[in-house]
Amino acid sequence: VLVDDGLELLTEEEARRLLAVGGVGRVGITMGALPAIFPVNYEVIDDAVVFLTAPGSKLNAATEGAVVAFEVDEYHGESRAGWSVLVVGRAEVVNDLDVTFKVLQSKLEPYSNGFRTNVVRVQVEFISGRRICTPT
Amino acid sequence: VLVDDGLELLTEEEARRLLAVGGVGRVGITMGALPAIFPVNYEVIDDAVVFLTAPGSKLNAATEGAVVAFEVDEYHGESRAGWSVLVVGRAEVVNDLDVTFKVLQSKLEPYSNGFRTNVVRVQVEFISGRRICTPT
Repeated sequence: VLVDDGLELLTEEEARRLLAVGGVGRVGITMGALPAIFPVNYEVIDDAVVFLTAPGSKLNAATEGAVVAFEVDEYHGESRAGWSVLVVGRAEVVNDLDVTFKVLQSKLEPYSNGFRTNVVRVQVEFISGRRICTPT
Repeated sequence: VLVDDGLELLTEEEARRLLAVGGVGRVGITMGALPAIFPVNYEVIDDAVVFLTAPGSKLNAATEGAVVAFEVDEYHGESRAGWSVLVVGRAEVVNDLDVTFKVLQSKLEPYSNGFRTNVVRVQVEFISGRRICTPT
């Protein structure tokens, strides 16, 4: 399915598979009525995007139960190959022992070396993915 | 200057220098009251972020003169080194011959192989950058 000139839609299954790899993603939030984007390390745990954070803007967004965007992509300039996956969902700080245990068992690391013990979870309420079409 | 635990603020000069490299960045917009993030190839032309797009969501945001977020980052998992730069500013479709000429002369390429002749410019009204602190 073409979504835009030169881009084709991924199936939900493909999008979820690419999202599940984890690594660096970007969280889009609103700060004082202005949009902002910050990188985070994330993992998918129980079908949700999970990352660690310290008190601050991302956490604020999270604690407020805000609807956030989460994006992950890969791009190879040489071959002009690439894809991106977009998730939209409500963010929340997780105080669930079961989730915290899974986070500790996962390979999830905070993005920076700081003290980041807050587990933030973004529910995957909407997911879509796009891939650059190979020229034919 | 520490902005967040484990992260230090870049000077505006450093942030502008990193932004000026160009390549893949992410645009954060609002679509139907929901946040969205999409990757684009960009260049900095006349101190503004410039990318190409086809009619669609990004362009819609642009034509509406929306305030958008633009983010670029680099992360090296091995060394835990990384930085990110965030720009916030009004987006607009550029119909200026002078800018179009500079785009044609630049190394700017559309993200995908589609027909993308719309030049979108994001004014750098706000810029900030963060770097992961090296553990001491």
